[in-house]
Amino acid sequence: MTNEIIKQKIAQAVQILSEKDIDLWMTFVRESGTIKDPAMDMIGGVGCTWQSALMINKDGDSTAIVGSLEVENFERFSGYKNVTGYVKSIREPLNEYLAKKNPRNIAVNFSRNSNLADGLTHGMFLILLEHLKETDFGKRLISSEDIISALRGRKSKTEIEIMKEAIKVTLEIFDETTKFIKQGKSEIEIANFVKERAKARGFGLAWEEDHCPSVFTGPEAKSAHAAPCDRKVDKGHLVNMDFGIRFEGYCSDLQRTWYVLKDGETKAPAAVQKGFDVIRDSIQKVADNIKPGVTGFDMDSIARNYIVENGFEEFPHGLGHQVGREAHDGGGGLFPNWEKYGNLPFLKIEESQVYTIEPRHYVEGYGRATIEEEVVVTKTGCEFRSKPQKELILI
Amino acid sequence: MTNEIIKQKIAQAVQILSEKDIDLWMTFVRESGTIKDPAMDMIGGVGCTWQSALMINKDGDSTAIVGSLEVENFERFSGYKNVTGYVKSIREPLNEYLAKKNPRNIAVNFSRNSNLADGLTHGMFLILLEHLKETDFGKRLISSEDIISALRGRKSKTEIEIMKEAIKVTLEIFDETTKFIKQGKSEIEIANFVKERAKARGFGLAWEEDHCPSVFTGPEAKSAHAAPCDRKVDKGHLVNMDFGIRFEGYCSDLQRTWYVLKDGETKAPAAVQKGFDVIRDSIQKVADNIKPGVTGFDMDSIARNYIVENGFEEFPHGLGHQVGREAHDGGGGLFPNWEKYGNLPFLKIEESQVYTIEPRHYVEGYGRATIEEEVVVTKTGCEFRSKPQKELILI
Repeated sequence: MTNEIIKQKIAQAVQILSEKDIDLWMTFVRESGTIKDPAMDMIGGVGCTWQSALMINKDGDSTAIVGSLEVENFERFSGYKNVTGYVKSIREPLNEYLAKKNPRNIAVNFSRNSNLADGLTHGMFLILLEHLKETDFGKRLISSEDIISALRGRKSKTEIEIMKEAIKVTLEIFDETTKFIKQGKSEIEIANFVKERAKARGFGLAWEEDHCPSVFTGPEAKSAHAAPCDRKVDKGHLVNMDFGIRFEGYCSDLQRTWYVLKDGETKAPAAVQKGFDVIRDSIQKVADNIKPGVTGFDMDSIARNYIVENGFEEFPHGLGHQVGREAHDGGGGLFPNWEKYGNLPFLKIEESQVYTIEPRHYVEGYGRATIEEEVVVTKTGCEFRSKPQKELILI
Repeated sequence: MTNEIIKQKIAQAVQILSEKDIDLWMTFVRESGTIKDPAMDMIGGVGCTWQSALMINKDGDSTAIVGSLEVENFERFSGYKNVTGYVKSIREPLNEYLAKKNPRNIAVNFSRNSNLADGLTHGMFLILLEHLKETDFGKRLISSEDIISALRGRKSKTEIEIMKEAIKVTLEIFDETTKFIKQGKSEIEIANFVKERAKARGFGLAWEEDHCPSVFTGPEAKSAHAAPCDRKVDKGHLVNMDFGIRFEGYCSDLQRTWYVLKDGETKAPAAVQKGFDVIRDSIQKVADNIKPGVTGFDMDSIARNYIVENGFEEFPHGLGHQVGREAHDGGGGLFPNWEKYGNLPFLKIEESQVYTIEPRHYVEGYGRATIEEEVVVTKTGCEFRSKPQKELILI
């Protein structure tokens, strides 16, 4: 399976190189067991001990030059058309390949904007310049950030199928959690239950265990990304959870909200219901408008404005981000025009990208109301990949 | 526990800075969940999402400047005396700190020689230069490789205790394996047994699962680092295994050799016995000579020459390496003067370093004979941390 996905991603990279008019993309790594270039998961598939150059060419060629003891691994498990081994130094075979191809530009993995495109260490950058010092190629190095952003963002059918399965399992665990939540359970107890369910089914977590899941109960729950604490669920609480699993190398990232009825209540109070409805409807408004060519900034504004118009405070974070091999993946996102997001809110949305939509606000006296869905962008709009939460779940 | 070790390593780093006459060591990272500087395990302890500068100063100060949402984590789980948070940009607090301390030199984590000291990505290096552009500090950046080599190499008492426990558990698993090995078991079956034993006891593996353990049986077994295959143990085989676990962040790395008696044999044939004895004795000769101040090259030569003098081929790798948070750790090793080892064979051996000693040769018609022990260097010599294998184990 992995092999097939890597082959697909290598083929996709060839197309992206044409589109971006870049001749060669080189991922230059060593000892990937100790420090791993994030690109390796997409276009490596197996680890490298010695200096290795994984090269994808606009002309359709893909060549990996690796230590001789790792040639067999690369031939068996990676998708490269050519695998070349070396014993003493990569310099000669590397320069031979470059001389043959004579690329006008060579994209390597460094980037100020995107950590996912910044896997080349500075020491390895210096080694590469040293290898190339008797040629002109050192001056032709450029950042691979555009390639990596496109490659991570545009999901193949196989990737989308895997992510669909990850979402399905995650929602099943949310359903099990509905039965577990009740008055007196602490955030930590709920989080441990969820982790055990994922573990029992053989899945990893989408992000660091200390806040995967995050669980928030009641009016005093903390800000986003805080670890669950020993605060207990009580009647009249809004409870919500942010959780994702890792399945065959891909992440899910979803949120759901529950309300715990007080004695005598048969439905949520009007303020709580309105809080939930505004979140739900803001997501639908974004889903109605998202399509290739619009910007993440516009999408964020739709939800943000709708929430403010309905009398709630705007959420203190972006509306959504891409999902893939990382829970926070890709380049552009559904972000406001805040300095820390740089130019990312203004990149055009593309077909086959997967985004979260996750507005949030606070219902005074009850807690946080938030839903997080995942959508995949289609030719003309989007499709929900998670069955959307349409109703507040009552406990 | 982790917190305590990190405090110890930070204190040790202060001493090393004095010794190396370096004013400041800065580990500059972001999104360590996606790509993690190997130094973070030693002097970080918790992850960083936003640009973060972990600074250790020769004057004894230690200051972490991190995103404001991660201040609490750093205060709770890391060992820094001062933790400063920022919201929009690290530039101002970073420059403020540097202006106050005015270091003559600033070690950052890039290295051509050692991947363990090469955790700074090239994009982050460019960002750092940009932050420092209105100052003179960009010109004072040097490689931290000497600091990291010393810090990883010189183990504290706590580290040595943890590693002792890791070795103990590993040898227990070797003992269990002795009972499992018999004619007809394949290398893969033995490897799976060993992995399950480690897993059942809650331990991780010291290196990549596909060859941890490596298992080799009989005269046709492959070279080192090859994954186990479906070759079956047979009578008259030398069997050996290379295996290590990960315990509280530290690795073990050991090898043992067995001989499977043929019908009618009550002891190993003379050639096999001699093969084993030469390996065992070469290890003892190295242990008798290793001490602070000698070079790894000298130690490698002792074993290599002894093996050749006894009529066997020399082993096609270094005699041993340091062990720590990685199975292959530290800077210098017990290496021959081969180009690929650079200057590492000639670094002086220091007190409190932990080395493997792992000579190997091939006994024609029977298989590989090899033992790997771990020793810790003392003031005047060394101590075995693994109970040495003195006799060939007969099956």
